[in-house]
Amino acid sequence: MDARLDGLREKLGQVADVQAAVALLEWDQETYMPPKGGPARGQQIATLSALAHRLFTDADLGNALRELEDRADQLESDDAKLVEETLYDYERAAKLPEAFVHELAGEQSKAFQAWAQAREESAFATFEPHLAKLIELLKHKADLLGYEGSPYNALLEDFERGMTADQLRGIFAGLVPRQSALARRIVESGRQPDTAWLEQDWDEESQWSFTLRVVEDMGYDLEAGRQDKAAHPFTTNFDLADVRITTRLDPRNPLSALSASMHEGGHALYEQGFQEKDRRTTLANAPSLGIHESQSRLWENLIGRSLPFWKRYGEVIRDHFPGQLDAVTPQQLFEAGNVVEPSLIRVDADECTYNLHVILRFELETALIEGDLDVADVPEAWNAKVKEYLGIEVPDDARGCLQDVHWSHGAIGYFPSYALGNLYASQLFEAILEAIPDLWDHVAAGEFAPLRDWLRSHVHQHGRRKLAREIVRDATGADPSPEPYLRYLETKFGTLYGV
Amino acid sequence: MDARLDGLREKLGQVADVQAAVALLEWDQETYMPPKGGPARGQQIATLSALAHRLFTDADLGNALRELEDRADQLESDDAKLVEETLYDYERAAKLPEAFVHELAGEQSKAFQAWAQAREESAFATFEPHLAKLIELLKHKADLLGYEGSPYNALLEDFERGMTADQLRGIFAGLVPRQSALARRIVESGRQPDTAWLEQDWDEESQWSFTLRVVEDMGYDLEAGRQDKAAHPFTTNFDLADVRITTRLDPRNPLSALSASMHEGGHALYEQGFQEKDRRTTLANAPSLGIHESQSRLWENLIGRSLPFWKRYGEVIRDHFPGQLDAVTPQQLFEAGNVVEPSLIRVDADECTYNLHVILRFELETALIEGDLDVADVPEAWNAKVKEYLGIEVPDDARGCLQDVHWSHGAIGYFPSYALGNLYASQLFEAILEAIPDLWDHVAAGEFAPLRDWLRSHVHQHGRRKLAREIVRDATGADPSPEPYLRYLETKFGTLYGV
Repeated sequence: MDARLDGLREKLGQVADVQAAVALLEWDQETYMPPKGGPARGQQIATLSALAHRLFTDADLGNALRELEDRADQLESDDAKLVEETLYDYERAAKLPEAFVHELAGEQSKAFQAWAQAREESAFATFEPHLAKLIELLKHKADLLGYEGSPYNALLEDFERGMTADQLRGIFAGLVPRQSALARRIVESGRQPDTAWLEQDWDEESQWSFTLRVVEDMGYDLEAGRQDKAAHPFTTNFDLADVRITTRLDPRNPLSALSASMHEGGHALYEQGFQEKDRRTTLANAPSLGIHESQSRLWENLIGRSLPFWKRYGEVIRDHFPGQLDAVTPQQLFEAGNVVEPSLIRVDADECTYNLHVILRFELETALIEGDLDVADVPEAWNAKVKEYLGIEVPDDARGCLQDVHWSHGAIGYFPSYALGNLYASQLFEAILEAIPDLWDHVAAGEFAPLRDWLRSHVHQHGRRKLAREIVRDATGADPSPEPYLRYLETKFGTLYGV
Repeated sequence: MDARLDGLREKLGQVADVQAAVALLEWDQETYMPPKGGPARGQQIATLSALAHRLFTDADLGNALRELEDRADQLESDDAKLVEETLYDYERAAKLPEAFVHELAGEQSKAFQAWAQAREESAFATFEPHLAKLIELLKHKADLLGYEGSPYNALLEDFERGMTADQLRGIFAGLVPRQSALARRIVESGRQPDTAWLEQDWDEESQWSFTLRVVEDMGYDLEAGRQDKAAHPFTTNFDLADVRITTRLDPRNPLSALSASMHEGGHALYEQGFQEKDRRTTLANAPSLGIHESQSRLWENLIGRSLPFWKRYGEVIRDHFPGQLDAVTPQQLFEAGNVVEPSLIRVDADECTYNLHVILRFELETALIEGDLDVADVPEAWNAKVKEYLGIEVPDDARGCLQDVHWSHGAIGYFPSYALGNLYASQLFEAILEAIPDLWDHVAAGEFAPLRDWLRSHVHQHGRRKLAREIVRDATGADPSPEPYLRYLETKFGTLYGV
């Protein structure tokens, strides 16, 4: 018994409880809140978020953490890790004065509204002054936090701790030419799978039961979670025994809900896989968004868009839509989930071109933060990069630089997580295939326990005990690299498209 | 501009935001939370409730309130009222030391679990020591709060401010003999309406759309609210633009969901009817539970169980259940909603016997708090009163003194609200019929605007500006009395049963 440590756990538990309330306020806002509830909800979220921040940055908590850190060698390893990680968060939070946090939150709120209007009107000019103000504040935030090298590093730290702009440039430099070239070869091949069978009506209740069946087979515990509908699918948790996913139903394409549910199911399996003893503490979290995204993409893409998956779930989906899929083979389902077509919208992009969307955003946002790009020049720069990487013209800002919400939330440094998620997923998956040589036989039989157990022991259970690169290195024996992802893409799409 | 007042409003707004989060945590617990989410949820609710209490009992807030109270004559009347009501709450809350609040909450939690187990086993002995401990703590709470006359008055104040045990005894003394006698005459008449037509399967989706249709017709704004399913229907709000109801579907009886939805719809109309300017303040609340309950019972019983209602909604319900009600008349629907049969369970009781259930609980709980009844003697006293008032034998504790959750929550003083709600509703309704002589024609045409407007202006909009008895007196010209309710019962059931 260590009274200091107990006190720390109690305070962190209270912060976690308030954060859980914020998460529920947000979940409800996206799922069940009636339309007129919005203004009050915004206020409630702001009040509770500020309360959580105030509780967490309390000086007593800081003193307790520093005292415990001083005698960390006498603590058990889990406790020492808890103190280390919490002190890291505490010191970061304490560097931001409350007045600055408040100003930034106010600007974000205004910028979000301006962005929504600008996108509606497809007029970047409406958003421009707000983005400029945000960039200014975020540069100031980087100064407050401190950094080495690029100020972008200070912001990236919130999403991919320990990663730098230079490291990302190095990784992406290896990716872009080969991914671009692969996409070009596919376009030039002129081949596309026959997906005419998709042109039917797909009953929403059947989509619902099919997606639930799949996520349950993945191992998502529906007694400790649930699925609901949301315009933009997401996963959230209020405890490791209450992890919720959302999905989106498209009456013209049942594969859309499947992707969304498997993606969110992958996130949810991660959060249900934290350790009981880490409940209500700093450790029951992912170390980075990139690692979190690796779990969703692994299930959505590496499993859900594989031929072995459809060897089993071709039958299952047929049972859910009687008479609609009798003539459709697993190969056809596999091909329909892997159509490659360079397009304007990131969230609709195929696996082959997705990272290109992300990388162009990374290049623009680093240039904005490092002072190499004026906010006014964003549309032109955006359109040029889309032309260069994807070979297509951007017809308007709404389908160009205004399509994503992230920048309006002040989330600069977030986009790389998506690409890193793809890379980590492929690299982990090569290790998985080595550890479980008959993995594909299991998948083709709808048996996901071996895969899930591997992820539980190599990724999930660690929570924040390891950084992203440590997880990858310990699980695969190598530092994060784009090679496994390129191998995966070139093999899969090379075969599919004969290029 | 008054900086003190603005500061007060800001602090009250924050407290209201935290309370809204607690309400959402509770709403979700009863509607969508997955089963394993319970333990974490309990902790979250406890943390947020304690935070709200701490924010509200902050000494700075008290000082600001007292300073404003000192110069109340310079404030606008709404502001003066806000200060007065908030100071009342503040001083009451400040009388309870945090350690006591914490001890009581802990005992309530244990008592609730013991009660649930006791009811499961139908064994009062399991609950007895916990109830004894709660009674002891509640007597201490009464001492801390202070009172004149009975210590019960101090507890009753939380639910029906300004009412006393003696006043209630006086009111109930007039009710019991006449209500009991009426029930007895009905039983002895041997008459019962023919409800054989109810024995069909009632589709749940049709029940859902029918209940939504009715509450929408009542004027419940579904853009600022929603209906969900819950085992024990309730109403909650997170803002006057987000007021939610719940209902319960019985596949064997569509009138059960109708009653629940109209009851909760009545509560919801009240909360949607608070004033915009009272948002996030003390004033956007009902002055008592009895007044709140008058609104639910008025819609559920006086409207929903009336013949004119069925003259219109007989057609509507027929359309929702095609082919199932072709031969059923408005008179038959009216009779089916008004079957009188003395029974053991309060929540299933008919209008004619309902108050008798409530009054026997009131008599027992006052005796417990005033020291005239030992906890160990509760089952015997309960059973004797059921025999005396309802003429039936209690076969076991589960269907006797263990049936209600209230005492296990430490909610002593709550039950009278239910009876007062019935009384207030009838008294208000007599005034409404005088003000709107053709009210029944409107109801028979499905037009509820005149009734709703009357309630808005005489009850809803006042929030906490008036006490319950002031609302009744101002709206009806008389103090609260049992006479209107007895007239209503004796007329309606006398006619229906020919007694």
